Amino acid sequence: MNHYPAPIIRVIHNFGKLPGIGGKTAERLAMHLLNAPEADCLELSASIGALKKSVGLCSQCFALSDGDLCKICASPVRDRAILCVVENQADMVAIEKSGAYTGLYHLLGGLLSPMDNIGPNDIRIRDLISKIEKNTIREVIIATGTNVEGESTASYISTRLSGYPLSITRIASGVPMGGDLKYVDQVTLKKAMEARHAL
Amino acid sequence: MNHYPAPIIRVIHNFGKLPGIGGKTAERLAMHLLNAPEADCLELSASIGALKKSVGLCSQCFALSDGDLCKICASPVRDRAILCVVENQADMVAIEKSGAYTGLYHLLGGLLSPMDNIGPNDIRIRDLISKIEKNTIREVIIATGTNVEGESTASYISTRLSGYPLSITRIASGVPMGGDLKYVDQVTLKKAMEARHAL
Repeated sequence: MNHYPAPIIRVIHNFGKLPGIGGKTAERLAMHLLNAPEADCLELSASIGALKKSVGLCSQCFALSDGDLCKICASPVRDRAILCVVENQADMVAIEKSGAYTGLYHLLGGLLSPMDNIGPNDIRIRDLISKIEKNTIREVIIATGTNVEGESTASYISTRLSGYPLSITRIASGVPMGGDLKYVDQVTLKKAMEARHAL
Repeated sequence: MNHYPAPIIRVIHNFGKLPGIGGKTAERLAMHLLNAPEADCLELSASIGALKKSVGLCSQCFALSDGDLCKICASPVRDRAILCVVENQADMVAIEKSGAYTGLYHLLGGLLSPMDNIGPNDIRIRDLISKIEKNTIREVIIATGTNVEGESTASYISTRLSGYPLSITRIASGVPMGGDLKYVDQVTLKKAMEARHAL
């Protein structure tokens, strides 16, 4: 790396800090930028520089947003009576990509984890409850992950919401589509057997 | 990708243009930057923005440099009587990393390739000759690659320099170190047999 001029070493060093980008890749990216049109290089620089300044959280669902409300909360076609509770932006985007959901979201910003000292006050459960009290909500779908933290958070939220007049549902667990049964773990198979349905 | 606010989509789009970075990786990098400290994000942006402005070519060897002379040409400890002719910066860096060379370089900026209409005037052969005429040079090591273009460029340069009082050498070809003979191609083995030496 010392065989390059300082400005190139600086770019290689900064690229190398990104996840999944090692020294060799950082070097190749810097060399690519040197040969790329100046406009592309400046556009990449400007877009990264503007990123954190122009992105905040939606005041309703706490998803990433460049305005007060995110596109989903601002959309007139989404069903405002259904709320899908997810851990974070990535999970929300995954559900959006599936195209199977047309309601609103609520991002917790974390999952309950006593081991890491994360309790109910550290994630947005109070916001969820006040949202339910203020709006007419028919159904809350709890779409946290199926690991220990996700399951316990789902169970906690379901208990906290049990007094409200709405249905509380959980996304189904089972064998993934296209999955080969012999590669599926035992707990998933057990869940899939328990939740079997008539054809 | 449409599930993100515009500034994030812009960063994902720009990252996606880099070599070896697909949509998924670009998304992960953008998400990482959103969670990274603002200073890291701005530093990455600034370093990329400054890259092309602050890097030019060394006036002597044509390597990338942030000044008039690159670090190697400006160094007082390098042997100025030996010149290593390479195709580009990457080849020069590879030789520097080996630590086996202490002379100066000359970057051709390409290789002869009649198929692509690249002739002797399109690469820096004239600069090489005028450098040899103006300076006291004892040896020219031709370190172009061992593919067709590299070999023909080496042969052309060796013919053009034959009238000057200096020794012209070519880097050795043979079996790579740590190489298993059964995986080495026939042409390389033939070269290695021809260039065998006493132990």
